[in-house]
Amino acid sequence: MQFPSKLLENAVNEISRLPGIGKKTALRLVLHILKEETAVTVALSDSLIKLRQEIQYCQQCYNISDGPNCNICTSHRRDPKLICVVEDIRDVMAIENTAQFQGHYHVLGGIISPIEGIGPSDLQIESLINRVNASDPAIAEVILALSPTMEGDTTSFYLTKKLNEFDLKVTTLARGVPIGGELEYADEITLGRSIVSRRIYEAN
Amino acid sequence: MQFPSKLLENAVNEISRLPGIGKKTALRLVLHILKEETAVTVALSDSLIKLRQEIQYCQQCYNISDGPNCNICTSHRRDPKLICVVEDIRDVMAIENTAQFQGHYHVLGGIISPIEGIGPSDLQIESLINRVNASDPAIAEVILALSPTMEGDTTSFYLTKKLNEFDLKVTTLARGVPIGGELEYADEITLGRSIVSRRIYEAN
Repeated sequence: MQFPSKLLENAVNEISRLPGIGKKTALRLVLHILKEETAVTVALSDSLIKLRQEIQYCQQCYNISDGPNCNICTSHRRDPKLICVVEDIRDVMAIENTAQFQGHYHVLGGIISPIEGIGPSDLQIESLINRVNASDPAIAEVILALSPTMEGDTTSFYLTKKLNEFDLKVTTLARGVPIGGELEYADEITLGRSIVSRRIYEAN
Repeated sequence: MQFPSKLLENAVNEISRLPGIGKKTALRLVLHILKEETAVTVALSDSLIKLRQEIQYCQQCYNISDGPNCNICTSHRRDPKLICVVEDIRDVMAIENTAQFQGHYHVLGGIISPIEGIGPSDLQIESLINRVNASDPAIAEVILALSPTMEGDTTSFYLTKKLNEFDLKVTTLARGVPIGGELEYADEITLGRSIVSRRIYEAN
């Protein structure tokens, strides 16, 4: 792609370094930016710089935070004896959106993936163990809310081994056919598992 | 969507104002930015601000430029008697990529579209007429390279009326079945037009 201007080329190159954005999309975005007021561009740039320079991670759960502790860890309405372990903050947001969980979180910052060279020491696993160890009141339950993939299962297995040294319950998310899904379209592994782990029918 | 941090929310909101980027994509981009070095974010922000504040439009053809005149208008190897009229700079880049055109451009900055409230006075049409009028050597040909849509055809029609006052040739892009396309998949209007405007077969 040949550009009529170095400034344009530079901006397109920078934007197309973002994941899922190619040169054509980047050019479309840049031309949009040029049509907007300068103030819009300044606001965009400032918000990114400010985010990058001022963002903090909660010292207890490693969730993204504006201060040294996130508003979930500091909330008095949440149960500190219950920890939900997740891969990243998108999972925290997804679970928060359900409004079904009233405990604390622990954000691993990834999952164990030998292919990508991510081992237990690259994740917030040691801090989780230390947290469980030092917690007062004692942690009663750790929920492993990791993706039901090979890597997620490996991580859950590893964590369970570590957590079984403590006197607490280790649980995981229920797996089965999704609500609203049609049985015939469920994959056979999910359907098979949901038959094996069938449960007593509860009317309402 | 509930965010654990105001800074994060702000950045996601700013990014999701870009066309074709929703909140989920914006969040994915922002989390990617947080994983990168600060220098990457600074480079991205700086390139946008610099682009927005320093970019110029060529005084002759209204193409994007780093200086008062673009490098096409100032090039000695291009024919100034030939002007190709396009909608925006993406079209300039597309035509430049073909390496088949050696004249100058004139970027309208849009096309006539009554639905979107864009009339001839919102576009660089007067400047085109003035340019043709004042040009020395005289312009020999104006190529209308606008999209083959209702709006593009309207604009071409309007321009032709204006340009016919001058002693020059007004041409438009050839329309027909695209190269590499299968006849049976060509739409009937294109196919019909390409039969009406059939041409002598030239071997090679």
